[in-house]
Amino acid sequence: MKIVALAGGVGGAKLAHGLAQILPPEDLTIIVNTGDDFEHLGLYISPDLDTVCYTLAGLANPETGWGRVGETWNTISNIEKLGGPNWFRLGDQDIATHLERTRRMKEGQSLSQITKDFCTAWEIKQTILPMSDSPVRTMVDTDEGELAFQEYFVHRHCEPRVKNFRFEGIEAAQPTSGALDALLSADAVIICPSNPWVSVDPILKIFPEIKKPMIAISPIIGGKTVKGPAAKMYAELGIEPSALAVEKHYRGLLSGFVLDTIDEELSKQMSVKTLVTNTLMNDYTDRARLAQDVLNFIRSL
Amino acid sequence: MKIVALAGGVGGAKLAHGLAQILPPEDLTIIVNTGDDFEHLGLYISPDLDTVCYTLAGLANPETGWGRVGETWNTISNIEKLGGPNWFRLGDQDIATHLERTRRMKEGQSLSQITKDFCTAWEIKQTILPMSDSPVRTMVDTDEGELAFQEYFVHRHCEPRVKNFRFEGIEAAQPTSGALDALLSADAVIICPSNPWVSVDPILKIFPEIKKPMIAISPIIGGKTVKGPAAKMYAELGIEPSALAVEKHYRGLLSGFVLDTIDEELSKQMSVKTLVTNTLMNDYTDRARLAQDVLNFIRSL
Repeated sequence: MKIVALAGGVGGAKLAHGLAQILPPEDLTIIVNTGDDFEHLGLYISPDLDTVCYTLAGLANPETGWGRVGETWNTISNIEKLGGPNWFRLGDQDIATHLERTRRMKEGQSLSQITKDFCTAWEIKQTILPMSDSPVRTMVDTDEGELAFQEYFVHRHCEPRVKNFRFEGIEAAQPTSGALDALLSADAVIICPSNPWVSVDPILKIFPEIKKPMIAISPIIGGKTVKGPAAKMYAELGIEPSALAVEKHYRGLLSGFVLDTIDEELSKQMSVKTLVTNTLMNDYTDRARLAQDVLNFIRSL
Repeated sequence: MKIVALAGGVGGAKLAHGLAQILPPEDLTIIVNTGDDFEHLGLYISPDLDTVCYTLAGLANPETGWGRVGETWNTISNIEKLGGPNWFRLGDQDIATHLERTRRMKEGQSLSQITKDFCTAWEIKQTILPMSDSPVRTMVDTDEGELAFQEYFVHRHCEPRVKNFRFEGIEAAQPTSGALDALLSADAVIICPSNPWVSVDPILKIFPEIKKPMIAISPIIGGKTVKGPAAKMYAELGIEPSALAVEKHYRGLLSGFVLDTIDEELSKQMSVKTLVTNTLMNDYTDRARLAQDVLNFIRSL
């Protein structure tokens, strides 16, 4: 079964890693959100792409879910001493990724080509693709005005109240060609448990006509998110945060929906077939188990 | 006695540090060569300026003379894994300097303003000035063609034979205003034991009319350099490398010349007053002792 997974950062990376433990490498393609990408300290930073790559390479910090394991912080602490911006915590190993990516982009290489080369260097056998090689920038409209995503997310700790989202450059952005090919040959598309508003929506806007069975896993469990501001965003947009709200968000697109056992009651109100299972991924075993559950569910549809 | 020191990298930084141990901070200005500056991995790197700053701040690696003490190499080793350029060994702490400097330059700040702020952050009380805020690039004409300085010096380990030097941008380069002021109020100018061809000549070309007593310390001891390619350059240019060759290099400019006891015989052939002393600087005490000898010599002229 050939699978394309659509992923944002930590939650998406965890399920992608679970799928990678089960599927043959050539049968798994992960299309990653690049709306969170930004330039900082002159570096081109692609947080979701890096989180997915580090996770699949076994290089991710298991405590945080983002960044590198065994990371050191000598550069950022010295930037701090010089009075430079320190709100985006860049580790020394992580900076290598950004410096080398920025250098190659300045040479004219595409983000997808660079990602391919990096995956080879990190011995990742699955295919990881940015959703687009064109710049897309998620802008968060808040009660304090419009903020670039990382400004909202990291610098302001998601404190401003969300009113809307805008994906700058999305109309002009071309899907990466490898991603289109992967979608054509896929048996099913899995929307990972990532933030629907800021991680998945940009990818869906880049690929508006996916003519494959699509299933989504709720990133909201018991009204809360494991990580990130999805639940807070739902509440601020006047929608009660729940697995049901997520299912409604994707309504019309899905063949199936996966929610946590804690939310079983909500499945009755859903308009697609559901799988109720334990969706919390605390360790590597959880990731593989959830991935297996999802794959079995797809087969059953 | 107000002193202006003209310095390149390691040797210049050592004597500047010696002078800093003796003179009141407000009486010492160090004008530093920027002909070695270059862009690498998108970073603006100013090797001589950093060596002088790190040395005066007590942050320099005492073993190498360049780079930071207690340095780690996690970024460059990861760049290497990604197949990126690794010939210029950038430490993690050192990268902070380059990232923050590059960020500020892109904001439009001048190299001298940035250097001033960095010196404040590093608690350096003496004045350290780049020779110019305009870009000057030392180009080395060799038997393998013209090479940018760091390409010749670091990447090619000074292996190509030197034929000539060119300082790109030197005609248009303006001296930093602080440097002109310092030279106006100086009692004497000390040419540190730096490479005459590539460290001192660019500074002298930027400040062609220094109307103050000038003394130079030979970077060549017993026909050899402590560090760097000065002796090799003299030989390849058809001049026997010696303290005498250095004195001749500066002839017409100097009021006095300082050479090592090992070269005492050569002093007879020199056209200015000489000080023969131990010029080797192995430790902090050596630096202060040589600085004191040089200051006494200046007073005696």
